[in-house]
Amino acid sequence: MRLENIQTTKDVDFAVLGIPFDTAASNRIGARYGPQHIRDASVLLRPYNPDQDVNIFDYCSGVDYGDIDVIPGNIHRTYDQITEGLRPLLNDDVIPIILGGDHSISLGSLRAFAAKYGPVSLVHFDSHGDTWDNYYGEKYMHGTPFRRAVEEGLIDTAHSIQVGMRGPLYGPGCIEDARDLGFQVIPMREARKLGQEEVNRRIHARVGDANRPVFVSFDIDFVDPAYAPGTGTPEVAGPTSFEALEYVRSLDGLNIKGFDLVEVLPAYDSGDITAGLASAVAYEMISLVALKKKHG
Amino acid sequence: MRLENIQTTKDVDFAVLGIPFDTAASNRIGARYGPQHIRDASVLLRPYNPDQDVNIFDYCSGVDYGDIDVIPGNIHRTYDQITEGLRPLLNDDVIPIILGGDHSISLGSLRAFAAKYGPVSLVHFDSHGDTWDNYYGEKYMHGTPFRRAVEEGLIDTAHSIQVGMRGPLYGPGCIEDARDLGFQVIPMREARKLGQEEVNRRIHARVGDANRPVFVSFDIDFVDPAYAPGTGTPEVAGPTSFEALEYVRSLDGLNIKGFDLVEVLPAYDSGDITAGLASAVAYEMISLVALKKKHG
Amino acid sequence: MRLENIQTTKDVDFAVLGIPFDTAASNRIGARYGPQHIRDASVLLRPYNPDQDVNIFDYCSGVDYGDIDVIPGNIHRTYDQITEGLRPLLNDDVIPIILGGDHSISLGSLRAFAAKYGPVSLVHFDSHGDTWDNYYGEKYMHGTPFRRAVEEGLIDTAHSIQVGMRGPLYGPGCIEDARDLGFQVIPMREARKLGQEEVNRRIHARVGDANRPVFVSFDIDFVDPAYAPGTGTPEVAGPTSFEALEYVRSLDGLNIKGFDLVEVLPAYDSGDITAGLASAVAYEMISLVALKKKHG
Amino acid sequence: MRLENIQTTKDVDFAVLGIPFDTAASNRIGARYGPQHIRDASVLLRPYNPDQDVNIFDYCSGVDYGDIDVIPGNIHRTYDQITEGLRPLLNDDVIPIILGGDHSISLGSLRAFAAKYGPVSLVHFDSHGDTWDNYYGEKYMHGTPFRRAVEEGLIDTAHSIQVGMRGPLYGPGCIEDARDLGFQVIPMREARKLGQEEVNRRIHARVGDANRPVFVSFDIDFVDPAYAPGTGTPEVAGPTSFEALEYVRSLDGLNIKGFDLVEVLPAYDSGDITAGLASAVAYEMISLVALKKKHG
Amino acid sequence: MRLENIQTTKDVDFAVLGIPFDTAASNRIGARYGPQHIRDASVLLRPYNPDQDVNIFDYCSGVDYGDIDVIPGNIHRTYDQITEGLRPLLNDDVIPIILGGDHSISLGSLRAFAAKYGPVSLVHFDSHGDTWDNYYGEKYMHGTPFRRAVEEGLIDTAHSIQVGMRGPLYGPGCIEDARDLGFQVIPMREARKLGQEEVNRRIHARVGDANRPVFVSFDIDFVDPAYAPGTGTPEVAGPTSFEALEYVRSLDGLNIKGFDLVEVLPAYDSGDITAGLASAVAYEMISLVALKKKHG
Amino acid sequence: MRLENIQTTKDVDFAVLGIPFDTAASNRIGARYGPQHIRDASVLLRPYNPDQDVNIFDYCSGVDYGDIDVIPGNIHRTYDQITEGLRPLLNDDVIPIILGGDHSISLGSLRAFAAKYGPVSLVHFDSHGDTWDNYYGEKYMHGTPFRRAVEEGLIDTAHSIQVGMRGPLYGPGCIEDARDLGFQVIPMREARKLGQEEVNRRIHARVGDANRPVFVSFDIDFVDPAYAPGTGTPEVAGPTSFEALEYVRSLDGLNIKGFDLVEVLPAYDSGDITAGLASAVAYEMISLVALKKKHG
Repeated sequence: MRLENIQTTKDVDFAVLGIPFDTAASNRIGARYGPQHIRDASVLLRPYNPDQDVNIFDYCSGVDYGDIDVIPGNIHRTYDQITEGLRPLLNDDVIPIILGGDHSISLGSLRAFAAKYGPVSLVHFDSHGDTWDNYYGEKYMHGTPFRRAVEEGLIDTAHSIQVGMRGPLYGPGCIEDARDLGFQVIPMREARKLGQEEVNRRIHARVGDANRPVFVSFDIDFVDPAYAPGTGTPEVAGPTSFEALEYVRSLDGLNIKGFDLVEVLPAYDSGDITAGLASAVAYEMISLVALKKKHG
Repeated sequence: MRLENIQTTKDVDFAVLGIPFDTAASNRIGARYGPQHIRDASVLLRPYNPDQDVNIFDYCSGVDYGDIDVIPGNIHRTYDQITEGLRPLLNDDVIPIILGGDHSISLGSLRAFAAKYGPVSLVHFDSHGDTWDNYYGEKYMHGTPFRRAVEEGLIDTAHSIQVGMRGPLYGPGCIEDARDLGFQVIPMREARKLGQEEVNRRIHARVGDANRPVFVSFDIDFVDPAYAPGTGTPEVAGPTSFEALEYVRSLDGLNIKGFDLVEVLPAYDSGDITAGLASAVAYEMISLVALKKKHG
Repeated sequence: MRLENIQTTKDVDFAVLGIPFDTAASNRIGARYGPQHIRDASVLLRPYNPDQDVNIFDYCSGVDYGDIDVIPGNIHRTYDQITEGLRPLLNDDVIPIILGGDHSISLGSLRAFAAKYGPVSLVHFDSHGDTWDNYYGEKYMHGTPFRRAVEEGLIDTAHSIQVGMRGPLYGPGCIEDARDLGFQVIPMREARKLGQEEVNRRIHARVGDANRPVFVSFDIDFVDPAYAPGTGTPEVAGPTSFEALEYVRSLDGLNIKGFDLVEVLPAYDSGDITAGLASAVAYEMISLVALKKKHG
Repeated sequence: MRLENIQTTKDVDFAVLGIPFDTAASNRIGARYGPQHIRDASVLLRPYNPDQDVNIFDYCSGVDYGDIDVIPGNIHRTYDQITEGLRPLLNDDVIPIILGGDHSISLGSLRAFAAKYGPVSLVHFDSHGDTWDNYYGEKYMHGTPFRRAVEEGLIDTAHSIQVGMRGPLYGPGCIEDARDLGFQVIPMREARKLGQEEVNRRIHARVGDANRPVFVSFDIDFVDPAYAPGTGTPEVAGPTSFEALEYVRSLDGLNIKGFDLVEVLPAYDSGDITAGLASAVAYEMISLVALKKKHG
Repeated sequence: MRLENIQTTKDVDFAVLGIPFDTAASNRIGARYGPQHIRDASVLLRPYNPDQDVNIFDYCSGVDYGDIDVIPGNIHRTYDQITEGLRPLLNDDVIPIILGGDHSISLGSLRAFAAKYGPVSLVHFDSHGDTWDNYYGEKYMHGTPFRRAVEEGLIDTAHSIQVGMRGPLYGPGCIEDARDLGFQVIPMREARKLGQEEVNRRIHARVGDANRPVFVSFDIDFVDPAYAPGTGTPEVAGPTSFEALEYVRSLDGLNIKGFDLVEVLPAYDSGDITAGLASAVAYEMISLVALKKKHG
Repeated sequence: MRLENIQTTKDVDFAVLGIPFDTAASNRIGARYGPQHIRDASVLLRPYNPDQDVNIFDYCSGVDYGDIDVIPGNIHRTYDQITEGLRPLLNDDVIPIILGGDHSISLGSLRAFAAKYGPVSLVHFDSHGDTWDNYYGEKYMHGTPFRRAVEEGLIDTAHSIQVGMRGPLYGPGCIEDARDLGFQVIPMREARKLGQEEVNRRIHARVGDANRPVFVSFDIDFVDPAYAPGTGTPEVAGPTSFEALEYVRSLDGLNIKGFDLVEVLPAYDSGDITAGLASAVAYEMISLVALKKKHG
């Protein structure tokens, strides 16, 4: 969007920033290039969102905050960098729109958000729940961040929801475990049966109080690989690009304190269509910031 | 379709021709290779259209008329070439099926059609309205042809319609401007709500008189990038390939005098699927020519 | 799926095997690499299928049986290799899940199945009927296997059905011919109008007796090219990946003796999404084997 | 080169024609698209060859003769088509420049040349000798044409030479066999040691009599894969594009009656550089025709 | 190189800037993305150049000056933007390293340089001379800038040299014309015969006076397409990447006032190797700036 | 090479095995797919090496030992797996040919070799020395393995040599540091000046005693990106594929106890040419094993 590229939190409502870390990916790797790839695609974006009827810069201002320094191969040092890096933004009530990186980065982000707001509501779009206990014995991987976050008390699971899960699992326990952690889970096939409006209604019902601080985590593999081939663990039978945008648009009305958008891998992004979709998702996230201001 | 490659207008009902001009593109460029790319994909086409129940060559004959010479970098000389190039076809009542090139070429074509038929009805499928006044001060770009055409009196806007617009804009005025020029505009999101049958009904209602001469302009970016990645300014959240073909098929009954199909860019056409779709669209256009003959 | 790679039929319920033959393709060629490509993508698969609620290895066991040796350029010697290669599996009641190769291989497979079971019911998902008489005078091509199979008495056409046909034809006879051979044919556009549930109902009704031996043939070009670009003769306007999986899932309850999955071409498989889809289809086929065991 | 596309032999010195047959390929397949791919790249060619100092159309005229119809999957019927297709050209002393297709097509061509001229000298650039006896028992494959041609008496091996062989073999006999058939063989590594000038000298010495009719067969995999990735059985450690062109240029002075240029596969041709190289090779072949006329 | 991104000329010795204009390309198009593509590849560069034994930032400082605004489709307004955009840099004796864009931009740059320094020596590496008079009647295209520049008196041709020309031409006059304009021309084939050291010697001899202001123009298609596939009009038989770098390195000792590096097209840049090479060329250009300071 | 896929050390002279670990890559990532990618390309290899005149299986036997389990994200646990995994091979005097993975894996391998043989001679082909002390403070990265190995006493640096270094550095110290560690270093530019024969002579001289145990480490980025685009940190101006093979061939006569071949990244491997080259390199490594047996 050709946002000014500057590291400031003054007079700023939102900040787009990258976390180019992908050490924790179990399969295809390369999400470290996600932030650059999405930025490249965003140059076509313009300020007026006709579907939400909002002219973004009439209501809010934002910057491209650059990337947080990460340490390839060292997830713990990287988590510290993330938490440190987000603190000044959160302290000044700037809403971060974080571009990953693999999904492991959400744990670092949630630590920062919980430090500021206490446990947050999580609204999570993904084809995988990412609530495994470990992967080959590793506790900190891109399949485990939300279990770790629950264990660390960062998420208010009673008001959190996961949407879009699908694909083969190790066993039925994979989804049950997420429910045991307290999450509401709507797998993709159930989401289709309920219809998108009903799912949207359930998301709002789950969050409940419109003032409750919410963190939105959007894994690009939530969308079908035909629309988003450039990702690490694609799962067929997902929603279309239109449906994906509608899910994000429907979050209007929630008190969202931050977003992440993860797992974009340029190397598989034939025709760069994933970058186009991801920049449209980020644009809808920014539009939500503007709408919140507009509604007052 | 392995049509005979010959420049003749004798005993010919339709002519496929290319206009490989792309100087007026604002973003990705390369539509100059569109005609060749679509022709390459068309070798699989066969004469019987089961969805329209018509065997094309039972009712009409056609040729591959080759390409019109264009002048890269010089849009005004190119417009003259287009208008000159189409004249012999229109004089002999041959229906051109024009393969672009970027969307700026439609202005050259409309000059030729209006010279023959007077102002024509425009039926326009696109994710962008292409009715800007200028772009960086340039009056003749691929975002402006239909405003110029209205200013030059080439379009009967009262019987013209645009379908499929979406994506971020500079402001709400972008669509209002098109309406102020006289067009009916059905943005994509509204088209989804109305349903495809209702949109089709409105197209026919807008054109009104079944004898009114119609020009159909189809920008391949009307279709979602998952189905048509090979284009210059892709917009997510568009229709599927099936829906796109249904839109074209539904035009049966109109008095169509010419078609264009623009903005196919091979360089981004992963798996060549855009070429396949574009050749299917062109095939449906040809089928409409045959159906008109069949209906008498 | 990281199945054990071993040529055994002992204590085995299903065997995945490749037939990397593509000499009989009329257009794009390269399906010889299909088996390897699908196997590469299958490493992400896990044992529990949440959509069918079955843990595969609780009910059955399987192996990766490797590839059958084929003779590039010699279809008749290859057919002999296929028939010979399948015999030990069928003799021991192992259910083959065959990865092609082009569609011509189905004739070799059907010879083996008919030798064991007599004429079988064919459930065939494809954008083309593959029931031509010949192609440039050649009787054995990837467009003719099912006509040859009918002529050889390998298919019980009265209980066979083809779903998904679309695209331009040489004439209306192309579909009528298949019906004259005895097949029920549901073209894609009709399938959309009927709805997927009704199509599924008709498939079961057509097969009739739940004990009748069934062969399932799935050409990946059944699916829209946006979801399956990596194939030889793609046809636009096909089903989505979700719909495709639902078609396979709906076959639960039939007495399926074998499957093939053909026409995957890596060279056009942008982003490897076709491989992902094909491995998901194969996974649903394996799930059907497990479900039959589960249901007892 | 935008040659006139017409099937004539009148007042024509050379004819470019395609033989899009690839059934006989043992590995990667897709050379059927070679002729179109090379033609697409040839539009940049211009009439004056500065390295040979000849303006082609000052000395000769040529046409694009189109493609010979081939029968995918049936090599014997295809050979008949090739021999028939070349006859009118050879009868009128037109020099064919044949674009393959896989290397098996050379056998069909050599039958036509031998019928006209008797056994011909073969000058053969390739990384493989293509003189196997059979491949998986198949006698007619892309690895066997020159052995078959010798057996059929089509080649004057005493004045024939093969240059560029390299890569792992089944055994030392592979090259010895070619020598036993009578060919002179200069493997690539030896060619490097001798230097290009000496190799050129040996080619002329081998052919001997400057009036002896010569057939030149150029397999694009002669060149290193860095310069020609788009081929079926690439072999590393080959010559550069400059060296390859110099080899062709050095044939000036021989009485060449025909050329083929085979094994171009678009699907692996990253950046289309192989097409560019192949069109440059074809251009040098045409230049040789012009030079022969120029020298009188 | 992660240079600071700022538009300043204070305390700066060199400035990297982009001119993303490609309207004047005659063939493949897309050089507008060249600057971004080269910048993306440059993040791996480090300050010490071992081949020139210079640590860049010990001797000079530089910035990434961003891109000059261009007007797609309007070359004359773009030329004005270029000339205006370079003026503040030249006024403050900053050495611009200009990333194109197609080769037409050099005319705009030369106007700025001549305004400051008078007619400059041109050292030009390219596979094409770009000294045509017109192209399809267009005087301002990417094949004509150096003729226009001579006509406008911007180049001191008596001390200018072109290296690397090759490929088919319209006639022998194409090179003679350049010589008639006053340039020394060393075609690629002659350069190979002379050897690189002798060519380097001739370049220095041609420029003559070590204080004469020099402009270096490097078209990436100077290099062989195996090393630089991502360009618009590739010509086979060019130098390797090593040779290309050596040519640039050898310019040490000249009084270079500016550089451009043009015709990088990402869409054909398989494996991004052209971007890597272009960033290495730009790095050698920067090293020359540092060396001049070092030599004092 | 279609080696038998079995984990045995009995009656085996060499074993090809993969270590698909890439967590330690600093730039592009994806070498985890290297082993599979190289194996896919190796199916064309045959037993007789004409350049070394050895029929491999006349002198030795080998297996495809599969992959060592690695722990993505945890380099220390992975090192333990590598050391454990290699031990049974080394104990039975099997020569491992290890396919990486990123270059960090060499440290794990060297630990196993030193445990068996004491400090080994290292012959190292690479464009980077990989002897940094740390990277962003990380001690165990793909840029540091050989410094760590020296510190751990695993390498006999007095008889070790590095060849091919090039590209920008942080400072002159980068190469001096390697020399301070005791390595002989021949940067690429010096290697060109010396000539390949002299470099080969120096390698043998450096190793000295023909009985000294040697470990050969070959980073595919040693080769120019035109020949090996599929790698993580490509450096232009490297050797050709022919030169690279000649370097490996020249090692005949050394007492090589193991090899690795690292940093092959499929995602950037346009046309799969890197896989072809890497399999040719591995083939030359295997040939060295056979030659040692042959020489007795």
